[in-house]
Amino acid sequence: MIIRSGVLVAALAGLAGAAPLDPNSAAARVAGGALLDGQAYADAQALSDRIGQRLAGSAAAERAVEWALATMRAAGLKNVRREPVKIPRWLRGDERAEIVAPASLPLHAAALGGSVGTPKGGLTAEVIEVATPDELKTIGERARGKIVLFNKPMQRTRGFEGYGAAVGARGRGAVEAAKVGAVAALIRSVGTGPGRLPHTGATRYDDQVAKIPFAALAAEDAELLHRLLASGAVKVRLELGAHVASDVESANVVGEVPGREKPGEIVVIGAHLDSWDLGAGALDDAAGCAIALEVGRLTAAVGGARRTLRVVLFMNEENGLSGARAYAEAHKAELSQHAAALEADGGAGRPTGIAVVAPAATPAPSLPLVTAWAAPLAALQLDAPRVLDQGGSDLRPLQSAGVPIVDVLQDMSSYFDWHHSAGDTFDKIDPHDLALDAVAYAVMAFAAADAPERLPPSPPPPRW
Amino acid sequence: MIIRSGVLVAALAGLAGAAPLDPNSAAARVAGGALLDGQAYADAQALSDRIGQRLAGSAAAERAVEWALATMRAAGLKNVRREPVKIPRWLRGDERAEIVAPASLPLHAAALGGSVGTPKGGLTAEVIEVATPDELKTIGERARGKIVLFNKPMQRTRGFEGYGAAVGARGRGAVEAAKVGAVAALIRSVGTGPGRLPHTGATRYDDQVAKIPFAALAAEDAELLHRLLASGAVKVRLELGAHVASDVESANVVGEVPGREKPGEIVVIGAHLDSWDLGAGALDDAAGCAIALEVGRLTAAVGGARRTLRVVLFMNEENGLSGARAYAEAHKAELSQHAAALEADGGAGRPTGIAVVAPAATPAPSLPLVTAWAAPLAALQLDAPRVLDQGGSDLRPLQSAGVPIVDVLQDMSSYFDWHHSAGDTFDKIDPHDLALDAVAYAVMAFAAADAPERLPPSPPPPRW
Repeated sequence: MIIRSGVLVAALAGLAGAAPLDPNSAAARVAGGALLDGQAYADAQALSDRIGQRLAGSAAAERAVEWALATMRAAGLKNVRREPVKIPRWLRGDERAEIVAPASLPLHAAALGGSVGTPKGGLTAEVIEVATPDELKTIGERARGKIVLFNKPMQRTRGFEGYGAAVGARGRGAVEAAKVGAVAALIRSVGTGPGRLPHTGATRYDDQVAKIPFAALAAEDAELLHRLLASGAVKVRLELGAHVASDVESANVVGEVPGREKPGEIVVIGAHLDSWDLGAGALDDAAGCAIALEVGRLTAAVGGARRTLRVVLFMNEENGLSGARAYAEAHKAELSQHAAALEADGGAGRPTGIAVVAPAATPAPSLPLVTAWAAPLAALQLDAPRVLDQGGSDLRPLQSAGVPIVDVLQDMSSYFDWHHSAGDTFDKIDPHDLALDAVAYAVMAFAAADAPERLPPSPPPPRW
Repeated sequence: MIIRSGVLVAALAGLAGAAPLDPNSAAARVAGGALLDGQAYADAQALSDRIGQRLAGSAAAERAVEWALATMRAAGLKNVRREPVKIPRWLRGDERAEIVAPASLPLHAAALGGSVGTPKGGLTAEVIEVATPDELKTIGERARGKIVLFNKPMQRTRGFEGYGAAVGARGRGAVEAAKVGAVAALIRSVGTGPGRLPHTGATRYDDQVAKIPFAALAAEDAELLHRLLASGAVKVRLELGAHVASDVESANVVGEVPGREKPGEIVVIGAHLDSWDLGAGALDDAAGCAIALEVGRLTAAVGGARRTLRVVLFMNEENGLSGARAYAEAHKAELSQHAAALEADGGAGRPTGIAVVAPAATPAPSLPLVTAWAAPLAALQLDAPRVLDQGGSDLRPLQSAGVPIVDVLQDMSSYFDWHHSAGDTFDKIDPHDLALDAVAYAVMAFAAADAPERLPPSPPPPRW
């Protein structure tokens, strides 16, 4: 779909019973600017193609920080700065996985973020397969001394639903497997894609439970183990060089469009600068950084809003949310003056809807407000506005402090084909879809910053 | 699509104006057997999952030979034997490719089969991009000292057309690049698939021209180089450990269903046992081996045909056609008694048509014959029979000797997504499509072996 600015403005004025849109309005100017003079695609390319993977703590992540500072300044943002973040530096090292019995067959595997390594020389053990960590309860002693394989395919959905249902096993799999005596764990990649790609992602340990190595397998290799297990024992050798090095000083990158009337009230538009190390972090989250920067650039170009719009590019969303925590801590005193926060961390699929975080049980008073703010987006044919229980990961500490969270939902049907894998490269981004994302985020962020009224506080986020 | 045998037989009898099919006919029994008691899927799995990659000359290729001998015997074939083939053993070694300027970015690359390695420690040079070897003529001295990138996407087609148009550059790219002074060459993978997979495949040298290293790049990485080259020089470091070791003795595996009336006349149904080393060689060519074995098994089960049906599983189709040449040499004296040859080497997509090799210019007298042989396949809704100028690669030496070549065409729309890459794994095979393939090959091979008449000789194959 290619929409030219004039067409969009005309459509905005005519569709879905929306009031005619003044072409001089901020929404019209923002939409036109994003579509005809957008820098989002170029910014996403700069991060993906010229910096590439930028695992928190790496030299490339520091290059991304420098790039973000320069890009914010060029975008006309003010008060552009680093805000320090301490990174517990995890390193992948060399890794190798293979089936050694009943035949010698290579496996495409990648350690999960935060995983410990194997002993030098690797470990070899029989594999025992379960669908989910919960199923381990029925396994009893049979997992002792073995490598547990969690093998449940993720479902493809338009939103986060499929991922949400599958990712829990990646977070707690090592702990649950260690509890039943396993020596290591493998998980079918939490992803929907083809191409024999392992998809990494963060995992967690519990200090009360032995820490065992945990790696993702390409879907094809999980299927292979499943087929071989159907007719007998299978032994796997796993050698992971993953380890943690000394902490590194890094930074969130922050820039602002100062508010015209209430500069002390703040609307945050965030994204995360860091990425996993296997791909180029194009969809996750160069696209989001590009969207957030575009929102800042466009808001500055239209002369700013009533409140301050603050662009925050967080460091280390992927492997521990260090930047998110550092931001909340550094800005503790002004969190009550955060009128709203949004994070673009859902790839580059076109916008499908908007949402606000509110208690599920009551009619949300914030819903009519964000619905009105989204009115200029009628031409995008979005779904009816929704209530969610959380927004982007980096916003969790803000949500815990009650900051109102607004979200733009995007089409994620193909996002998880590449997410956290070597396939997350710039070619996966469609420039027109990305421009539409920038329009949607810009309209919502600008409205939150410019509206006379403020959203009520968000409820705390659900436990992970 | 799931077709049960009874339904198929009924359909065969009723559709497309075909004469009613006698359920006691060989065609009906073969179709029913392939669908209800087929071993093709299990055989393809055994080769893919339990032997895996079987590069000619490797220990795994020898395990494949042993497996094929045992499987032929279990299938009821007679005169099961090895026929010796000498393999010039090519080894990949360790390999690594990366962009070193304007930024440090990894590339997903794999040496092409037969490529020489780089000097120890690798080589680093600027990249110059062309679409095809022909375009090098317009480049002149600008390629000297550089790494040539051939970057033309392969088109997705239902048959071999897309591959045929793209693969020439893989064959002659190193020679053409060396002629203009390049120090190495890269090619965008000849494939249609996603997942950042390099697709290997054979390349050739010319003894009159310097031999330079030649590797395939994942499509994503070819696109990345293209984007970076749009704004300046790009340097790549390439380190390929590829080398040739001492020759190895290996074998074609041959088994027969002796002819009832003319045992000295032979119909060959072939496939190739070897595979490339990156994947499991499931589509290429465990599927074909499974089809050929099924044709042998079913022909034996229906009591054989008038002529001898000979199943030949060739060694080293991929990297030099050594087995094909060895077969033609060993059977030189009886090639005139080869009534026909077919090779299953087009993956596991369902059958779409049949073809016969004949001169293009004249009305082919063989076309009405194979059309009649294909009549029992009416229910498969095949395209009208076609004339081709060649069949499977292993049949080239036979075609050169005039052996009539018959082909079953298959849907290859997704075949080249995985062909010659790590993605060529067993999960890509659909059991029902594979069974339909076995039916089509069995009906055609049985007809060639049982028909009163013989096909006229094939014209020689076109030059590569």
